[in-house]
Amino acid sequence: MSLNGLHLTADLAAVDAELPVMTDLRALQALCVDAVRGAGLQPVGHLFHPFAPAEPGLQAGITGVVLLAESHLAVHTWPELGRVTLDVFVCNRTADNSVRAQALLDELVEAFSPGERLLQRLLRGELRD
Amino acid sequence: MSLNGLHLTADLAAVDAELPVMTDLRALQALCVDAVRGAGLQPVGHLFHPFAPAEPGLQAGITGVVLLAESHLAVHTWPELGRVTLDVFVCNRTADNSVRAQALLDELVEAFSPGERLLQRLLRGELRD
Repeated sequence: MSLNGLHLTADLAAVDAELPVMTDLRALQALCVDAVRGAGLQPVGHLFHPFAPAEPGLQAGITGVVLLAESHLAVHTWPELGRVTLDVFVCNRTADNSVRAQALLDELVEAFSPGERLLQRLLRGELRD
Repeated sequence: MSLNGLHLTADLAAVDAELPVMTDLRALQALCVDAVRGAGLQPVGHLFHPFAPAEPGLQAGITGVVLLAESHLAVHTWPELGRVTLDVFVCNRTADNSVRAQALLDELVEAFSPGERLLQRLLRGELRD
């Protein structure tokens, strides 16, 4: 039986640290879960963790994941650096989820309005059975 | 300020579905969290989700993540296909975590004793600041 997947990554720079989704866990979680649903993918759980500031008063980022029936979305924010990384990994076992994965990534990238972006893609699991 | 990262992926096939880590959530979670600590990385949270079997009596897989201070480990198992995917993503902000990431991935791959493996790596976040 075949199992392959598409893994999309986006590394963002020059992101405005004042955007709520850079430091507000609830805002980032809502953005991610809503975007997953909007793209037609199925969330099965999520976990977001706020980092402590290096010094009181400094900004600190968030790391989080939405587990999907189709694999996962991961996000990390570094407001102190204006950086964000995004991963969208979908498996194409019962349906081709590539278009949904790209739509999800595109929506999240735009939500951060980055000054600079590096987009990469990996084909996963192209193994003989 | 510089921020770059290393993303390692492993797509495994011909994995024995009878291995406890293929279907037992606690066994998979313990393997992952222990391997993270053993590699010298810092877990900050984890979430594992068991899928329901397609039909009663059939095997079903697990999807899970360990959030790290350094980024994340993600795993998905498909016992019905003998497949597993692994992702280890580490950022190298305050230290070069590349050796730790490779050690973590190597340990997890060996725990599944796959008949076939596809290993890939992406350099992340090589953006100007």
